Amino acid sequence: RRCGAAEVIYAAGKTADQVVRIAKAIYVRGDVVLMTRANDEQITAVCDAFKGEPIEVADSCGAVMIGSPGGMEDAEDSNRGGMVVPIVTAGTSDLPVAEEAAMTVKAMGCEARMVCDVGVAGLHRLMGRMDELGGDDVRVLIVVAGMEGALPSVVGGLVDVPVIAVPTSVGYGASFGGVAALLGMLNSCASGVVVVNIDNGFGAGYTASMIVKQNRVSAND
Amino acid sequence: RRCGAAEVIYAAGKTADQVVRIAKAIYVRGDVVLMTRANDEQITAVCDAFKGEPIEVADSCGAVMIGSPGGMEDAEDSNRGGMVVPIVTAGTSDLPVAEEAAMTVKAMGCEARMVCDVGVAGLHRLMGRMDELGGDDVRVLIVVAGMEGALPSVVGGLVDVPVIAVPTSVGYGASFGGVAALLGMLNSCASGVVVVNIDNGFGAGYTASMIVKQNRVSAND
Amino acid sequence: RRCGAAEVIYAAGKTADQVVRIAKAIYVRGDVVLMTRANDEQITAVCDAFKGEPIEVADSCGAVMIGSPGGMEDAEDSNRGGMVVPIVTAGTSDLPVAEEAAMTVKAMGCEARMVCDVGVAGLHRLMGRMDELGGDDVRVLIVVAGMEGALPSVVGGLVDVPVIAVPTSVGYGASFGGVAALLGMLNSCASGVVVVNIDNGFGAGYTASMIVKQNRVSAND
Amino acid sequence: RRCGAAEVIYAAGKTADQVVRIAKAIYVRGDVVLMTRANDEQITAVCDAFKGEPIEVADSCGAVMIGSPGGMEDAEDSNRGGMVVPIVTAGTSDLPVAEEAAMTVKAMGCEARMVCDVGVAGLHRLMGRMDELGGDDVRVLIVVAGMEGALPSVVGGLVDVPVIAVPTSVGYGASFGGVAALLGMLNSCASGVVVVNIDNGFGAGYTASMIVKQNRVSAND
Amino acid sequence: RRCGAAEVIYAAGKTADQVVRIAKAIYVRGDVVLMTRANDEQITAVCDAFKGEPIEVADSCGAVMIGSPGGMEDAEDSNRGGMVVPIVTAGTSDLPVAEEAAMTVKAMGCEARMVCDVGVAGLHRLMGRMDELGGDDVRVLIVVAGMEGALPSVVGGLVDVPVIAVPTSVGYGASFGGVAALLGMLNSCASGVVVVNIDNGFGAGYTASMIVKQNRVSAND
Amino acid sequence: RRCGAAEVIYAAGKTADQVVRIAKAIYVRGDVVLMTRANDEQITAVCDAFKGEPIEVADSCGAVMIGSPGGMEDAEDSNRGGMVVPIVTAGTSDLPVAEEAAMTVKAMGCEARMVCDVGVAGLHRLMGRMDELGGDDVRVLIVVAGMEGALPSVVGGLVDVPVIAVPTSVGYGASFGGVAALLGMLNSCASGVVVVNIDNGFGAGYTASMIVKQNRVSAND
Amino acid sequence: RRCGAAEVIYAAGKTADQVVRIAKAIYVRGDVVLMTRANDEQITAVCDAFKGEPIEVADSCGAVMIGSPGGMEDAEDSNRGGMVVPIVTAGTSDLPVAEEAAMTVKAMGCEARMVCDVGVAGLHRLMGRMDELGGDDVRVLIVVAGMEGALPSVVGGLVDVPVIAVPTSVGYGASFGGVAALLGMLNSCASGVVVVNIDNGFGAGYTASMIVKQNRVSAND
Amino acid sequence: RRCGAAEVIYAAGKTADQVVRIAKAIYVRGDVVLMTRANDEQITAVCDAFKGEPIEVADSCGAVMIGSPGGMEDAEDSNRGGMVVPIVTAGTSDLPVAEEAAMTVKAMGCEARMVCDVGVAGLHRLMGRMDELGGDDVRVLIVVAGMEGALPSVVGGLVDVPVIAVPTSVGYGASFGGVAALLGMLNSCASGVVVVNIDNGFGAGYTASMIVKQNRVSAND
Ligand SMILES: Nc1ncnc2c1ncn2[C@@H]1O[C@H](COP(=O)(O)O)[C@@H](O)[C@H]1O
Ligand SMILES: Nc1ncnc2c1ncn2[C@@H]1O[C@H](COP(=O)(O)O)[C@@H](O)[C@H]1O
Ligand SMILES: Nc1ncnc2c1ncn2[C@@H]1O[C@H](COP(=O)(O)O)[C@@H](O)[C@H]1O
Ligand SMILES: Nc1ncnc2c1ncn2[C@@H]1O[C@H](COP(=O)(O)O)[C@@H](O)[C@H]1O
Ligand SMILES: [Mg+2]
Ligand SMILES: [Mg+2]
Ligand SMILES: [Mg+2]
Ligand SMILES: [Mg+2]
Ligand SMILES: [Mg+2]
Ligand SMILES: [Mg+2]
Ligand SMILES: [Mg+2]
Ligand SMILES: [Mg+2]
Repeated sequence: RRCGAAEVIYAAGKTADQVVRIAKAIYVRGDVVLMTRANDEQITAVCDAFKGEPIEVADSCGAVMIGSPGGMEDAEDSNRGGMVVPIVTAGTSDLPVAEEAAMTVKAMGCEARMVCDVGVAGLHRLMGRMDELGGDDVRVLIVVAGMEGALPSVVGGLVDVPVIAVPTSVGYGASFGGVAALLGMLNSCASGVVVVNIDNGFGAGYTASMIVKQNRVSAND
Repeated sequence: RRCGAAEVIYAAGKTADQVVRIAKAIYVRGDVVLMTRANDEQITAVCDAFKGEPIEVADSCGAVMIGSPGGMEDAEDSNRGGMVVPIVTAGTSDLPVAEEAAMTVKAMGCEARMVCDVGVAGLHRLMGRMDELGGDDVRVLIVVAGMEGALPSVVGGLVDVPVIAVPTSVGYGASFGGVAALLGMLNSCASGVVVVNIDNGFGAGYTASMIVKQNRVSAND
Repeated sequence: RRCGAAEVIYAAGKTADQVVRIAKAIYVRGDVVLMTRANDEQITAVCDAFKGEPIEVADSCGAVMIGSPGGMEDAEDSNRGGMVVPIVTAGTSDLPVAEEAAMTVKAMGCEARMVCDVGVAGLHRLMGRMDELGGDDVRVLIVVAGMEGALPSVVGGLVDVPVIAVPTSVGYGASFGGVAALLGMLNSCASGVVVVNIDNGFGAGYTASMIVKQNRVSAND
Repeated sequence: RRCGAAEVIYAAGKTADQVVRIAKAIYVRGDVVLMTRANDEQITAVCDAFKGEPIEVADSCGAVMIGSPGGMEDAEDSNRGGMVVPIVTAGTSDLPVAEEAAMTVKAMGCEARMVCDVGVAGLHRLMGRMDELGGDDVRVLIVVAGMEGALPSVVGGLVDVPVIAVPTSVGYGASFGGVAALLGMLNSCASGVVVVNIDNGFGAGYTASMIVKQNRVSAND
Repeated sequence: RRCGAAEVIYAAGKTADQVVRIAKAIYVRGDVVLMTRANDEQITAVCDAFKGEPIEVADSCGAVMIGSPGGMEDAEDSNRGGMVVPIVTAGTSDLPVAEEAAMTVKAMGCEARMVCDVGVAGLHRLMGRMDELGGDDVRVLIVVAGMEGALPSVVGGLVDVPVIAVPTSVGYGASFGGVAALLGMLNSCASGVVVVNIDNGFGAGYTASMIVKQNRVSAND
Repeated sequence: RRCGAAEVIYAAGKTADQVVRIAKAIYVRGDVVLMTRANDEQITAVCDAFKGEPIEVADSCGAVMIGSPGGMEDAEDSNRGGMVVPIVTAGTSDLPVAEEAAMTVKAMGCEARMVCDVGVAGLHRLMGRMDELGGDDVRVLIVVAGMEGALPSVVGGLVDVPVIAVPTSVGYGASFGGVAALLGMLNSCASGVVVVNIDNGFGAGYTASMIVKQNRVSAND
Repeated sequence: RRCGAAEVIYAAGKTADQVVRIAKAIYVRGDVVLMTRANDEQITAVCDAFKGEPIEVADSCGAVMIGSPGGMEDAEDSNRGGMVVPIVTAGTSDLPVAEEAAMTVKAMGCEARMVCDVGVAGLHRLMGRMDELGGDDVRVLIVVAGMEGALPSVVGGLVDVPVIAVPTSVGYGASFGGVAALLGMLNSCASGVVVVNIDNGFGAGYTASMIVKQNRVSAND
Repeated sequence: RRCGAAEVIYAAGKTADQVVRIAKAIYVRGDVVLMTRANDEQITAVCDAFKGEPIEVADSCGAVMIGSPGGMEDAEDSNRGGMVVPIVTAGTSDLPVAEEAAMTVKAMGCEARMVCDVGVAGLHRLMGRMDELGGDDVRVLIVVAGMEGALPSVVGGLVDVPVIAVPTSVGYGASFGGVAALLGMLNSCASGVVVVNIDNGFGAGYTASMIVKQNRVSAND
């Protein structure tokens, strides 16, 4: 079963019942359901309710996708590259946010390419993976980082496409729950860096997909 | 005389001499020069130094463009639409920031379309100009607002393309020099809204152009 | 049994015993008791203590009303409209705060009219319910919103009565527990918007009732 | 010449020319013009442009009213009381904000009654003027205070009508340009206190007039 | 058994064992032990360890006094008045902080006089107890308040002695854990108001006792 | 000519005329006039208006005293010591605030003893002047410091009397206009430290005098 | 078994499995493993996995060292002094942070010398231990303090070597989780004070060891 | 004329006369005078007063050095390298702060090596100058950056010596006068990064010299 567009449920602050009810309403319309910030109870309830349907869960961040987004498979080979969104992370603890972004990108019918643990304090690791970040096929990058949030500036200086920077709440003390990273990204001296809310992997994934699909659409015209 | 790529000088904190010298070095390479945040003395010095060359000045924000970016004129008619970037403002006082964005968009070889004074407290004004915001040709929007910074949320809910939100320092008291607008935009409940620094028209214009030109390139393949 | 004026107990930081004792002292005087921010233990204790008396509980926010406020029923039909207070919310998570406001409005002898889930990112939902917000009978509106807190600005621009804006602590990251919404509302570019503390549904309901009842009194003169 | 409704121009960040042009456009429609935050140059330009017309200027705050609002004079005697809005200030330095509120109240066709220099550190002064604050005719109060912003709490405890609290930027050090007063007012333990932005006399005057005129309308029905 | 001076243990972050050991070391020297911020485990351990000795516990705040401070009983009758420290609170939730102050005052050999629930929103309650606040015998006042923290300003305006203001973390939303009250008190427009840290009942009690005992000493010379 | 009590005018935000008028009204009643934060224009106007009267001006801080406070001269020799208030400063730039405190102390009929430039980074300087800080005659200390504001903690640990700590706005960067010093003082680990607003020399001097004079009165009984 | 260099694992946000796996990978390379911020589960897992190997655990802060760093033992006697790093703490609650610093210093092959509980409010305690802070052998000091964070300023004024200041989150109210201490240290008026993040004992220990070992290396040349 | 140790005058907030007087007192003792933050008037006065003496002025930051520090010239050739302190800057506007650091380094008898304009958004510029940053002779680095303050993290990851990070107030909007850079540096994920106050070039230069000279001393033993 192949669904059409993706619609999103922000599960935080809703009951398991509410979440299942809304998900069903969306799914019967033929749309992919993307749920973010679901807790264990909500995930179990949804998995029960959608037994037999295609469902994918990212435990680390509570993201759930129900249904199979069309997209990559449909695209002609020569066009698939452009629909790939590299998601770059500074450290291991940034992974949950990156996985929320990745699930969003998939639910939008694009492909996520994880490039992890390439923080700025070990520049050689980043340099060793530049081919995964650049190349003709890449039209936008998502860069996820906590603590000082410096990675988007460095990456932004190395590539020629927009960088969507996601500050994470990883850190302690004067990281102030992600504020240090957020401010670092807003003040980036690299051109082409835009920012979303702290830990907002969804927002980054959604916007990146918008950018990527616009390309696709115009190319397919 | 038609220039190639655009290179940017951030004039704040530089002397008039330094600014002229850097501008010349860029210009002789055949590139368009974009200068932002230039003061009167710097503008005069640059205008003197580049007498006879194509030069455009936006006094309100201190942006200067030297040279003629290729782009729109070169594009085939059927493709020009996609290179237009609507720049939407909430109020009159947001204009200087919007003009920095517009000059940047132009220096990048795209076209800026100003849609001004359509703040959320007078929704009918915004509604009356939706055709300028949407349409097949639009691939990204810049939305500039101060005070409560609500306009990107409203616009983001009405369109299907990414919105680059620019908070401005317009306001007083608890606007805290643009912080209220910045926070509003970071917390936007509309999907597809990304944010740049307070008053950073340049950053919005630059990223929007990146998005738009990617489209152009892939369409032209 | 019909009570006179309403008196309020802020239950947070009091013991169940203290809360019951104070409630009894008020009730025997013939007044309606409104209790806010009561926890489960306090609610149970109060329900036990007032078994047989008219009592209403809003679990979501811990508001409890004991006694029957006079008001709507007493009013002549032609005057009832003016005593209705529309309570508008942006999203589902704002409901508990809206329910605190609603219980307060009722305890003051007025009527609450809930208009929920009409956040600014889906303007058509708000537009489709404008008749519930406006009309001759409406003299004041309560608008409850978290995240970017933009709804009061939009609503304020569409109506000609005062808007009491209630920021909620709904959101994450740079919402800073309701600060983003609070700042947004304080900086509203719509005229006639006043603000109460984060999550203060009570304050909004109380002030709205004051405004509405003044009308009633003068109309009944 | 008697005008109809009042329309408002926020002069800050506009040129003298722009301000005159907008004022004329409003005035020819038959409306009262209220201009706030006008600087000396703007005030002179407006006074020149409207020579011969009824014009009132409050230098302390840069508020200007052009035209004669109907209202108080039209009201039957028995109804005039309800259209009076007491504006209470804590200290001398709060006066400019109070005068912005007063001019706004007048432009809306109501009457402002100044009760000044009755800060909480000298309670007897406030007590000696309670008759001006209360009474049958008062339906709403504006209370203006800087520094610790405690006056609205005290006044709110003494009266039964809504209090619109206006924090001012008066103070130094840890007053943080009005933030201390703003927070004090948002946390008021008196019921019925609502708050506007720091120094926003206009917002308080506008909302107070809305409340007062609703009364009038219903009384006149 | 009568002890000499009081020495203080701040129990937070220490083990029950550590706390008992330090207390014993002080007590054997003949000093009164004052312990603040002790948790249940620490209180039980101390009560066990000092079975048979004079011990007083304030559960609400975790303050414990071991030993009998000399002072009031020793003073000649005519001098006792001056050693009384009125502790004034705005609301019920401020009580734990007031009790920490009271226990400290007692451990210093002075007398605490509680004047509770006299917040500024109900001025008559405060006015009805002015005799307990003033009079010849009072040389300093402690005023404890959360939320907007306005009580010290009002009290300070009514008396001629120093007021030690204690902001409490009572409140929600924009009270920011006592910051609103702290700022209010620092900006008090009443002369003679000094401030201690949020919830620091100990600091207020200690300083008040210093002031009061200086008086005593000099009077007894 | 000897005056009675001192009354205070806060000159900031008043015109020279207003300031002179208020000063005269106080002076004719027979009171000492203390004016703080007067600018050059106000000082000149006051000096002109009170030519021939005893007047003292502290240019560094804009404090002015008109009239001769009784006090020290009247006290019997054996009692004068107790009326001395040491005012301790960390650095040269803290002097203006210390001088506001000193003028206030004098206007209250006490004596100020300046102990300057004894900041904590040069402990030997402080140690070399401990005799001026302590001694039988000292009942309270004022300690003025900017930057990290550590001096009150150190002094408070060395003396047995209350320390009134005055944070100053001296510093740059992360001193945030005195906030770092203010926080340091509020968190002092020395017992007996109370705090006033940033740069509020007046408040410290006033409260110190209250404490000192209480002693005097009881000693004279 | 003697290891070479030390490599660090920041355990927070990693699973016990991940932590063991990384530790093994480092250890087999012949390096000392330093793990910080490990929780009980992680500590147990690591102790199990490295049974038989040299392992040291600091429970208070969750620091673990696996392997035996060379260093002190290798150094000739005359050179050992310079490799000692005094770690000075203000109070008992600062100990966990000091112990993270000490474990780091040891893992780097240097020696930690604890000088505890010498806060500025009891200067004699600090003075009595100055010989442990200074002397020819000391090349850098670590000073750990919470609350007002004044200790580095005092120590910095007494010694001639760099002071690495570590603010801790010890305190309450306006200590804001270590921000007051952090600001105090950044604004230190003593020369030679540098600062690390709140509670970052690791950072201080690492940098101090770098400084100390540079000395050693050059001395050994 | 060769001077001994350097002593420092912080000129901000002192008169030209005071500054000259203090400078003379230091100079006659035979010490080098380092003055920071001097304004034009102070610089002129000092140059006049010390005509004929060796004097060096850095206009950009107001630093002045009087006298000739011994140091580099005295050192044997093989040891000079270790006394060099590289000062790395991100952009042109960071230069004044770097020059304050350089003048301090020189006044301490060491050598400053400027490595400018190597911000993280153009990594190749930094990479091209790594030889100036590293090498056997370098024992500590100063890294100066505004905006997002990411440079110390990147540099710290590339070298094995301590990095003293200096945040600058360069930037606008959400850079908050250097706070974004300060937070970035405090949260650096590179080991061995310590931080000084915003714009505090002096503090960095002083501490770096302490580190470097310790090396020298031990090497010379
Ligand atoms: N208004 C602006 N706001 C933020 N960054 C800017 C602005 N204008 C230019 N820039 C950035 O500054 C760089 C040039 O800085 P500079 O080399 O100092 O002239 C450009 O490459 C842009 O990335
Ligand atoms: N002093 C003021 N503070 C806040 N808002 C104001 C003020 N004066 C006018 N306004 C608002 O600004 C609007 C006019 O803005 P503009 O069209 O830019 O002149 C009015 O409709 C008011 O809502
Ligand atoms: N420098 C100052 N800082 C804070 N409050 C002051 C200061 N000087 C005077 N005051 C207070 O301001 C009051 C006089 O204010 P005003 O009536 O406006 O002149 C005095 O009674 C003092 O309580
Ligand atoms: N307690 C700590 N605080 C700050 N940084 C740390 C701490 N412990 C380790 N690190 C840093 O974290 C890095 C290891 O991080 P990871 O690779 O995530 O284990 C080390 O190289 C250190 O730079
Ligand atoms: Mg780039
Ligand atoms: Mg959209
Ligand atoms: Mg409206
Ligand atoms: Mg009331
Ligand atoms: Mg008083
Ligand atoms: Mg003491
Ligand atoms: Mg030192
Ligand atoms: Mg390194």
